[in-house]
Amino acid sequence: MNYCSHCGGEITTVIPEGDNRLRYVCTQCSTIHYQNPKIVAGCLPVYQNQILLCQRAIHPRAGYWTLPAGFMELNETTQQAAARETWEEACATVEIDKLYTLFNLPHINQVYLIFLAQLPQPIFSPGEESLSAELFTEETIPWDNLAFPTITKTLQYYFSDLKQQQFTFRTIDIAPHASYQQVK
Amino acid sequence: MNYCSHCGGEITTVIPEGDNRLRYVCTQCSTIHYQNPKIVAGCLPVYQNQILLCQRAIHPRAGYWTLPAGFMELNETTQQAAARETWEEACATVEIDKLYTLFNLPHINQVYLIFLAQLPQPIFSPGEESLSAELFTEETIPWDNLAFPTITKTLQYYFSDLKQQQFTFRTIDIAPHASYQQVK
Repeated sequence: MNYCSHCGGEITTVIPEGDNRLRYVCTQCSTIHYQNPKIVAGCLPVYQNQILLCQRAIHPRAGYWTLPAGFMELNETTQQAAARETWEEACATVEIDKLYTLFNLPHINQVYLIFLAQLPQPIFSPGEESLSAELFTEETIPWDNLAFPTITKTLQYYFSDLKQQQFTFRTIDIAPHASYQQVK
Repeated sequence: MNYCSHCGGEITTVIPEGDNRLRYVCTQCSTIHYQNPKIVAGCLPVYQNQILLCQRAIHPRAGYWTLPAGFMELNETTQQAAARETWEEACATVEIDKLYTLFNLPHINQVYLIFLAQLPQPIFSPGEESLSAELFTEETIPWDNLAFPTITKTLQYYFSDLKQQQFTFRTIDIAPHASYQQVK
C-alpha cells in the first residue's frame, strides 16, 4: 500500500495510539487502513453417491479439481456465497445444508468455510472459471489432482463420516508449505 | 474509495471483463480493488458456572456488555484471534474449545465466529477497550444491557444447551435493523 484510497496522500506504517501493531496510515488525512483475512466459502455438493467437482480454468492450480468455492462478496451470507460460487463455477443450483469444515490458513490470510450441500438434480456444466464439471464417486475422484489441501481434507472427512453416517463439523489449521499431495 | 492504493491514480467503478459485479478499478494501473466481509472472532469464557463479560469503553455500544470479540488480524487463526481479543479486552488467558456460533451479518459485512472457551483461573481485568470485566451467572448477566444481538443469542443458546449438556454449533443470519432488545 503506497497511497491513501481516501485522499491520495502518501502512506506510512506506524502503530496508532491505543493500538499494538503496525498499520498503514495516511500521512495527510490520518486514515488508518486496516487489513484483514478473507473468507473463502464453498460447498460439497452431493448427488446420490456422487460429489460434484470442478476443474479449474484459472490460476492458481489451473487444471486441478476443486469443490466449488471462492471469495465471499459484500452483502451476502456465507451460505449464499457458497451457493453463488457453485452456480458460477458449475452452473448448478444446490441446497446448502450445514457448515462442515473450517480451515485456518494464516500464512495466506484466508479462512475456508465448506458447507455440505445437496444437488437435487444432476444438472450442471462448467462455468467461466472451470474447464469442466463432473460427478465423482469416492473411487473415481481424482485424488492426485485436487487443487488444494482444504479440498482433499474435506473430501477425506466426508467419505470417512459417510461410513459412520455422522457428519461432524471440524476446525483445521493448515500449516504453510502444506503438501498438495494426498496423505492417505 | 477515491484513489488507487497502489499507484495513486483515480478510481472508477466498472464491471471487469469476466466478472459480474461492479468493482473499484484504477483508471491508471488497472488494479482491481476487491472488497470482502470481515471476520469478528471472540469467545464465551466459562469459569465454573460463570461467564466472563466486558463492558465496552469504545463505540459502538460504549457502556454495554459483550463477550470478548473483535476483528481478526492478518497471520492468525480464528482461535488465536478469539484468544487474543480476550487477552486485549479482559486481560484473561483462555483455552479455546470448539466453534459455537457463526453469525452472518450481511448488512454490515461481518461474519461473527464465537468459540466456547475455558477460563482456568478467575484472573482478569479490564483491557484498554473495556470499562470493566466481570464474571456473571445466568441470573446476574445484564441481559438488558448487552451490546449486540450476536452476544445475546450466543448467551441464550449457551444456557439453553447447558441444561441439556449438549453444545450444538449453530449458524444464524442476523437481519438488518435487528432489535438490540433481548427476545426472551
